[in-house]
Formats: sequence, structure tokens, C-alpha cells
Amino acid sequence: MHAITIPEPGGPEALVWDEVPDPVPGEGEVLVEVAAGAVNRADILQRQGLYDPPPGTYPYPGLECSGRIAALGPGVSGWAVGDEVCALLAGGGYAEKVAVPAGQLLPVPKGIGLTQAAALPEVTCTVWSNVFMVAHLRPGETLLVHGGSSGIGTMAIQLAKAVGAKVAVTAGTREKLDRCAELGADILVNYREQDFVAEVKKATDGAGADVILDNMGAKYLDRNVRTLAVNGRLAIIGMQGGIKAELNIATLLTKRAAISATSLRARPLGEKAAIVAAVREHVWPLLDAGHVRPVVDRELPMSDAAAAHRVVEESAHVGKVLLVTP
Amino acid sequence: MHAITIPEPGGPEALVWDEVPDPVPGEGEVLVEVAAGAVNRADILQRQGLYDPPPGTYPYPGLECSGRIAALGPGVSGWAVGDEVCALLAGGGYAEKVAVPAGQLLPVPKGIGLTQAAALPEVTCTVWSNVFMVAHLRPGETLLVHGGSSGIGTMAIQLAKAVGAKVAVTAGTREKLDRCAELGADILVNYREQDFVAEVKKATDGAGADVILDNMGAKYLDRNVRTLAVNGRLAIIGMQGGIKAELNIATLLTKRAAISATSLRARPLGEKAAIVAAVREHVWPLLDAGHVRPVVDRELPMSDAAAAHRVVEESAHVGKVLLVTP
Repeated sequence: MHAITIPEPGGPEALVWDEVPDPVPGEGEVLVEVAAGAVNRADILQRQGLYDPPPGTYPYPGLECSGRIAALGPGVSGWAVGDEVCALLAGGGYAEKVAVPAGQLLPVPKGIGLTQAAALPEVTCTVWSNVFMVAHLRPGETLLVHGGSSGIGTMAIQLAKAVGAKVAVTAGTREKLDRCAELGADILVNYREQDFVAEVKKATDGAGADVILDNMGAKYLDRNVRTLAVNGRLAIIGMQGGIKAELNIATLLTKRAAISATSLRARPLGEKAAIVAAVREHVWPLLDAGHVRPVVDRELPMSDAAAAHRVVEESAHVGKVLLVTP
Repeated sequence: MHAITIPEPGGPEALVWDEVPDPVPGEGEVLVEVAAGAVNRADILQRQGLYDPPPGTYPYPGLECSGRIAALGPGVSGWAVGDEVCALLAGGGYAEKVAVPAGQLLPVPKGIGLTQAAALPEVTCTVWSNVFMVAHLRPGETLLVHGGSSGIGTMAIQLAKAVGAKVAVTAGTREKLDRCAELGADILVNYREQDFVAEVKKATDGAGADVILDNMGAKYLDRNVRTLAVNGRLAIIGMQGGIKAELNIATLLTKRAAISATSLRARPLGEKAAIVAAVREHVWPLLDAGHVRPVVDRELPMSDAAAAHRVVEESAHVGKVLLVTP
């Protein structure tokens, strides 16, 4: 088969579409013939040599895909050859085939194309596990989503609205904020021109955000803590703004607030399967019913993954950038 | 009645036993004739003028007491005049009488004297709400308690052991560590001589602590995060080591860990009542059965609260220092 390899870490041109051995599904795994993969920021770090794949995973990037089941490994039940699926991966999604633990498979939702389904696994699992399983967003509460027009952001807006929460977003352009509003966002903050602490407080009668989903890390830590409401929960899922920052514990304590930080990729199989099962239970019915939908910026050929990385690195996109196999 | 007043903030001598008006129980409150109060660090900050009582509470210090119900305000059921109780207070415990919302009352446990019961409300409510309701310590997990010989520490050790957890403690003397060991602590760290990060890791085969109960704040933040296990939870309840410190978000994220910070005093009545109800359900049976007991360092006359503050400020005590009414 073909896959994207990284002979030498570097810029987008470091991604090489090359011939590699076919994967073989092990115990409890299925082999998926990939229809599409999708770009995540972790792939860019991996390409740059800054984020090695966990031990035992494929060297090719790609944390999610859609496709058809081509073979079942030993001990797999509940799935059949030919099933259309999408899957959460620890790596190897930029390839024509990938072997996946069965616990990380999800069916393609009703009314969603096989290619488009590649946009779903990372965003649904990340948002559900952080905003709902860890931070327990409740109806009537306010969620602040940084990067509201990203893949994660567009899914977070829709899921929070679906459970009856109020949603604030930050983004860097009017156009991106308009897209967030179309998806249901109530409070729109242009982070280039406005102070999100002040804007969120103003829009919540001074209360602040009950939950914040943050991809910036250090750069926003203090401002996020100041934006939290009493009993607020800050869920950090990325460190695009750095890894170390001063924390004001007194502010946190006065608010009886909490900070969590997670990633999906390094979790053991059992935890991933538990998240996927929860997503299938809570998110999939919303997708099947058409209340929530994948937001896809564009589809590019997987062999030209470099072009897709350039789009994401320039933050020129809204939603997910997909990589379609030949 | 008499109460400890603070005419001018300052050292222990700022505490003046003076004649003040009797409190009157309002709607949903009971009047308690106080047998004993107990010293908390917040009382010392209040005496120093650094921690004003929340609006609407008594100006006298004291966050807990024991005593007999002397009168019921309107709308109180489930309690009777003459009942022996202890109570969580927002203030006013350094007094001969105090009016308390009924939701903050607890019966005196079987086999525990009325005076000794004053040692229970703050430590049981603080430990239960943080270690169990927020951080969800589970059987088989490891809890690290800083200040293991404090009032909070001695209760945290006992409750964690009662649910089947392993307990690590820090303290500053051999004698204090010995007392922690008598209460059940498994891992003893002298913070003056040893590195608690290394000691806890060594004693847990490199895994670290699943839950940390911390009273130091800034000074220990980075070391606490480094001590956490994967999926670990740091519960901060004090800032004796300062309020601002650098947080390494990457370490937190790699461990999928969380930090919470809370205090009891400022919580609304409903939250306090919910904590007291949970403590009555989960902790009181352990006290009634004698599996857990209050640890009292000494009893001093309430009129000499200054002497009690000096003991606590010198950290010369193990467990709680009580203030007995005349």
C-alpha cells in the first residue's frame, strides 16, 4: 500500500507518499481500507519531529480515518467485512490501509458520506471526553471555546448547543466568527480586537464561563482562570501558546475552580474504548438525526498531504481538512 | 454573651474576650449554646486583618463549634432544643452562643464527648468535599497529604485508610510522622530532610500519587504536579506557601491530570448543606463505629484564644486545638 512517510522531519515537503508494507490486524483489531484521513495539529508536530508517535504505533501520521472494513483480526465481534466506519487512531491514518483496535471504531452516521465521516472521530472524542466527561458541562451553563472555527471548535459549539448550553467563541476574523454564529455560537469574540475576559463577563452578567475548552495553554492560562465562573472548569487540550505560565491559585480557590489537561493519543486502549463508547451513545444519535454535522473545510488528495498541512498551518480553514485516498 | 472580638487586627493579643449582644436565630437557623470552638488557620488570617468574614456573617472568628441547641428559629425541623450537636460555621464560633443554618448541623457521634466534637466539622467537611467529592479518591489509590499531623491531615489519613487507599504524608518532625503512622499513614516523608517527589515515587513503584491534598499552594505547585500519577488529581485547600507559581501545562497534559482549589467558608448555604449531608452519610458512620476519631492536641479556655493561636502559629500541635467556653 501507500502511506505518508517522514524520511526527515521538516516543513510540509517532508511528507512523502511512498510504498510501505500492508498492515496486518492483530488480536482484537480490524483492517480498514481508508477512504479519507484528516489533519490534526499533532500531525504537524510529528512532521516537525516534535511529537514522536507512542511506542507500538505506526510511524505514519494520522489520528483518524474513515473507510471500509477489509478484514477482521482474531477475536473481533460486532463488525463485518464491508462495514463503513470511521476510527480514532494512535497513528497511521495517512495511509491506504490501517489496522485499528475494534474499540476505536464508529459506524458512519446516517446521512453522512464515507469521506466526510473522517472529520468526526478526533473532534467528537476530544470534545465529549473533555467538555462532558471531565468538565461536565450542563444545560444552561456557558461554554467558552477558543478557536471556535477549528475542527474541535465547530464540533464543541454544536454539541454544547445540543445539550442546551450557551456558547462563547474566540476566533481571529469576522468571517470565522460568522461561521461560528451559523453553528449556534451566542457570544462572538475577535481575539485580535477584543479582550475575551471582558467580553465573556459582559455577556454573562459578570458570571464568566462555567467551562472553557482551551487549545492555547500557557498564553491564555491566566486570562482563562480570570474568565472562569464560580465552580468553573478549564479543560486544556492544546499548548499552541506555550507550556509554562504563572497560575494564580488564589483566583482559582476563590472561584472553587478546576483545571484539567488531557490528550487522547497516549491513553491506554481501555480508556479510548470507553470514550468511543460514550461518544457512540451520546453524540452519534445527534449526528444520525442531523442535529450535529461534521464541518469540512476542504478535501485534498492524501498524496498531497503537504498542501493540507499548509492550509492548517496558515489557519486558513474552518472545520476539518480531509485527505482523500486515490 | 461573651465572644472573642478583634478591635484592631494584629498578633494573638488582638483577640479580646468581650461582652457582645446575643445572636438571634433567623429563618431556618438554630441557636447553639457553644461548648467548644476550634482554631483554623483562617482565624489567624482574620485576626491579622487579611481575611474579612463574608458579608452577613459574624465579625467574631470561628468556623466550627460544638454545643447544645438552645432555641429553634422559624422553619427548622429535625432538631430539638437540648440536642448535642457540632456545626460548620461561616464565622462566630469563638463565642458563647451562635446561630447556625440547620443544614450545617451534625449530631455528636456516639462515644465522642461534646467538647471533642468541636474538632470535627471543618476537617470532615474539608476532607470529604475535596478528597472524595471533588478528587474521587478510590480504594487502592494513593493519597498524599501535606501537613499530615494537622487537623485536616489527621482526618484525611483516617478517612483515606477507611476507604482502602494508601496514604503518604509530609510533616516536619519525626514525632509528627510517628503520630501519622499511628493513624495509619503508610509512607512518611520528613519535608525538612527529604524530597517528597522522589519519596512518593519510590514508594509507589514510580507511579506517583493519585490524589494530593495540599495546603501549601504556590510553594509546592510544581512539585505536586510532578508527584501526580497519570489521571492524578491535585486538590488545593490552602496557600501557606504563597498564591502564584509557574504551572507546567505539558506535565499536567501528559498525565491527563487535574488541579482543583476550593474553600468551604465562601460557599453558598446550599453547597454547605450538601457537603454536610454527604459527611453525615459517609463519615459519621465511621465515627459512630469508632473507626475514625477526632485528634485533639489540647483544650484551652476560649477567653485565652490568644494562647491557642500561638500554639497553631508555632505548628507545635498535632490535630486540633479546641477553645472551651467557661
